[in-house]
Amino acid sequence: MKNNGNIFELFNSVNDYWSPKIIADVNEDYIKIAKFKGDIVWHDHENEDEMFYVMKGSFNLHLEDEIITLNEGDYYVVKKGIRHKPEAKDECWVLLIEKKETRHTGNVTSDITKSTEEQLK
Amino acid sequence: MKNNGNIFELFNSVNDYWSPKIIADVNEDYIKIAKFKGDIVWHDHENEDEMFYVMKGSFNLHLEDEIITLNEGDYYVVKKGIRHKPEAKDECWVLLIEKKETRHTGNVTSDITKSTEEQLK
Repeated sequence: MKNNGNIFELFNSVNDYWSPKIIADVNEDYIKIAKFKGDIVWHDHENEDEMFYVMKGSFNLHLEDEIITLNEGDYYVVKKGIRHKPEAKDECWVLLIEKKETRHTGNVTSDITKSTEEQLK
Repeated sequence: MKNNGNIFELFNSVNDYWSPKIIADVNEDYIKIAKFKGDIVWHDHENEDEMFYVMKGSFNLHLEDEIITLNEGDYYVVKKGIRHKPEAKDECWVLLIEKKETRHTGNVTSDITKSTEEQLK
C-alpha cells in the first residue's frame, strides 16, 4: 500500500463504475475511491459504518425512509445496520471510508461485487 | 455527532489554527477538519496511524529524514510510531483521519494541544 498520492490523479485512473479502489490503510479502516453511475443493490453492513464524501458531481443515497442528495463537498456516514442504496444519474466521484472487512455490497453478492483483492489492484 | 454536512461550510466555521474539529465518527476512527498555519511540535502516535488530506492550500510534512510538501488533493498516511511535524507557510485546510483515542499532538502536550472534548465542540 503506497499510502500517499494525489486523489484526483488516482480518480483519473479509475475506469469502471462501482469498482472501489483502496488508496490508503488507516488503522482498522480502508480509504477508497469509486466512481458511481447508475445504481447498485440495496444492502447494509451489519457491523460496520461507512462514510461517503462527494469529491465531484452528486448522487442520491436511498435510505429506507428517505432519499438524500449529496453534492460536492457533502459527506454522510451510514451507520452499521442501516440499509442503503447509492444511485447516481451522472458520473460521481466518491471517497469512501470503510472498515477493512467491509464488503462493498454488504451480504448481497451481485454482478458488480468486487472482492477486497480486486479493490487493492 | 451529526455525521453529515458540507465539509467546505464546516471549514468556514473554523476560526483557530491547529484546532481540529471532529465532523464524523466512523468505526474506530474520527474524521476531523483543521486549519494549519505556522507549525506545531514534533510528535508521534505510538499505536495509531493518521491520514492527512489537503483540501485547500499546501503544507510541509516534516519527517525525520525528509520534508514532504502536500498540495491540494494530496494525501499521506503517517503510520504509527513515525515522528512528524506539520508546518504551513500559509493557511491550509486539512482533513484528518485518526483513531478515536489519538491525541493530536501525540504524547507531547503543548499550548496548542486540544482535548477530544474541545475537538467535539
